[in-house]
Amino acid sequence: MIKQMDGGVTAAQGFQAAGAAAGIKYENRKDMALVYTREPAVAAGTFTTNVVKAAPVLWDKELIEKGNPVHAVVLNSGIANACTGEEGKENNVQMAAAVAEELSVSVQEVLTCSTGVIGMQLNMEPVKKGAELLKEALADTREAARAAAEAIMTTDTCPKECAAEFETEGKKVVVGGMSKGSGMIHPNMATMLSVITTDACIGQELLTETLRSVVGDTFNMISVDRDTSTNDTCIVLANGMSGIPEIKKGTKAYEAFREALLHVARELAKQMAGDGEGCTKLLEVKVENAATVEAAKQLSKSVITSNLVKTAVYGSDANWGRILCALGYAGVEFDPEKVDLTICAEVQEGMVSIVLVKDGVATEYSEEEATKLLSQSEVSVVCDMKQGNASAVAWGCDLTYDYVKINGDYRS
Amino acid sequence: MIKQMDGGVTAAQGFQAAGAAAGIKYENRKDMALVYTREPAVAAGTFTTNVVKAAPVLWDKELIEKGNPVHAVVLNSGIANACTGEEGKENNVQMAAAVAEELSVSVQEVLTCSTGVIGMQLNMEPVKKGAELLKEALADTREAARAAAEAIMTTDTCPKECAAEFETEGKKVVVGGMSKGSGMIHPNMATMLSVITTDACIGQELLTETLRSVVGDTFNMISVDRDTSTNDTCIVLANGMSGIPEIKKGTKAYEAFREALLHVARELAKQMAGDGEGCTKLLEVKVENAATVEAAKQLSKSVITSNLVKTAVYGSDANWGRILCALGYAGVEFDPEKVDLTICAEVQEGMVSIVLVKDGVATEYSEEEATKLLSQSEVSVVCDMKQGNASAVAWGCDLTYDYVKINGDYRS
Repeated sequence: MIKQMDGGVTAAQGFQAAGAAAGIKYENRKDMALVYTREPAVAAGTFTTNVVKAAPVLWDKELIEKGNPVHAVVLNSGIANACTGEEGKENNVQMAAAVAEELSVSVQEVLTCSTGVIGMQLNMEPVKKGAELLKEALADTREAARAAAEAIMTTDTCPKECAAEFETEGKKVVVGGMSKGSGMIHPNMATMLSVITTDACIGQELLTETLRSVVGDTFNMISVDRDTSTNDTCIVLANGMSGIPEIKKGTKAYEAFREALLHVARELAKQMAGDGEGCTKLLEVKVENAATVEAAKQLSKSVITSNLVKTAVYGSDANWGRILCALGYAGVEFDPEKVDLTICAEVQEGMVSIVLVKDGVATEYSEEEATKLLSQSEVSVVCDMKQGNASAVAWGCDLTYDYVKINGDYRS
Repeated sequence: MIKQMDGGVTAAQGFQAAGAAAGIKYENRKDMALVYTREPAVAAGTFTTNVVKAAPVLWDKELIEKGNPVHAVVLNSGIANACTGEEGKENNVQMAAAVAEELSVSVQEVLTCSTGVIGMQLNMEPVKKGAELLKEALADTREAARAAAEAIMTTDTCPKECAAEFETEGKKVVVGGMSKGSGMIHPNMATMLSVITTDACIGQELLTETLRSVVGDTFNMISVDRDTSTNDTCIVLANGMSGIPEIKKGTKAYEAFREALLHVARELAKQMAGDGEGCTKLLEVKVENAATVEAAKQLSKSVITSNLVKTAVYGSDANWGRILCALGYAGVEFDPEKVDLTICAEVQEGMVSIVLVKDGVATEYSEEEATKLLSQSEVSVVCDMKQGNASAVAWGCDLTYDYVKINGDYRS
């Protein structure tokens, strides 16, 4: 039994955070964040599968693979530090070193994340000033977590945080996290930036295995624009400060921990999809009764990434042919004449469903009613494949004028 | 040596065409087309790989696989006749039968194509009226070819036609074609609708083999929105009326024929990409020095389908990081620190190129000059991978407000 709670990266014991306006690229907006744990933490991470990997991604991968204990994660949201060559790698180490010095820890104990414009070099002066500001602002408060979540936003319109708790051995264990991501969102083995903290006590191998499986059902199931970024990173830090014995696989404590991590990751993922660049709606696509989980994932992701589905959802148009079409090119075999499609949304009267398609052809549904459901801010589509009993859920958003506006003119 | 010529589906000897306003879905706009050959033609076709296949696609595949001689192709642009079940299949046969009766040929000698809204049933009354109108209007003139090309347009803003000729054995051979397609364009083994006619004499096996390889380098290399349609169809009819002996593989006549077919298909494909829904620019992406042709195709298609690249091109923003990012998630291994990126466009001074990226990092190019090139109506990007000597070209377009507008409100 897990419980959602208010909070972010400082919800778990022993974690502090801060956000600061360092002037990395723009003046007077928070653009550097720090997450710090007094006790060294076990770290696990998943990273972008893009062949083009940003300097901080290469740095974190190497440190985490070595199994180093981690004291801090420093993040900036002005410059992605991707496609920046040797100079970019050196700047990244300098950013870690500046924070390490402030915190009196080793540079090898500081992970880094960057997001922002690709191809520009980091200016080290604001980074060093930022490291000082972050050290001064570090706190274990709710406000400090929020400041960190705000400092990693780029085109995001709101900070993304979630925390959950459970009890084991009479002690409370907390998992809390933050993430950012609004455009270039099509995570593959990882997502844009997310840092999750926990005071659970858990070995690196089990933490890594758990994170991978959780990410596969959460961050890897969202898409804003089918563009897998160069900087995708999800880091989990476990500092053991809850005082529980080490969590072992197959125990109740493990199940509760996995559930808490899954909950936090899923909520953060949904917050990202629902805040996709320019979007007005969160689109959830559930594929049921597919032959395998892999097939269900492919089918649901194909629907949430279709520009034609996304524009129809924007226009509140129940153009279900586009949904069936997107299922059809997902690379999965199925019988189109067996598929049922249902849309659901919460309206004033409560949760309402309309079956649009039964056995591959249109029902006599009311277009007016369907448009009413599709006009809500959260819309679900259920695709019943009638092939087996595997299911998957993916989250995306509509494609709007504002997406084009934001991305036609991002750099200026 | 082939020569481009003015013309479309009636350019080759023995072909007639017509377009008519039958009122399939809207009144007073051409929505049915017919291509007819007096002498029965050998037919080859490539079709959508979408699991969801429209009724006309299933019909044509079966007839062509049987090796039936073909007398006519009837096309409508109001209703896609996809996801319409048994009733849709029956309506499709009725459409072929109506035309067969008018032309006094067997229903098995009439191919069909449909494009338009998915999921709605064809109304047979306008279809039958349309068959009559088409029969009356049939002609072998330039105007008749144009009328047919106009009648298959949906959201297309202009008709798409091309013809080419070559000489062999002292005789002139012509290949001419038309196509339509503006949205839901991401052909896979085929494209939206295209009919190509030729008076060459060629066996079905060789025609099919040639068509497949040509389509792989032309229609399959364009994308407007990464949505592979349920109705993609490309049909070639060869009626032998040029009077040449049958074309055999490995001969000069075959090379000339293949070149003519490639030219017509490539020009039609580029016309489709350049008329993508809402677009303002044709984007050509050439990948050079890749390890294999397959890799080069994957890389170039990944760039032309990226929403972030497409919006940057719309904004005339040389945001090359997005290009490198899209290469990076194409599923091909390469060393990002070796890649060069160049943009080219025809400006007043002639064809101008700017190297944006050298060995994976930005050059000191002028943003102003780059914006000037990207503001032209045809923009090329050259990606030098420095891995091998394979290359490929893909064509797409920018992503604009109008794409969202057209697709947010397509059905009303």
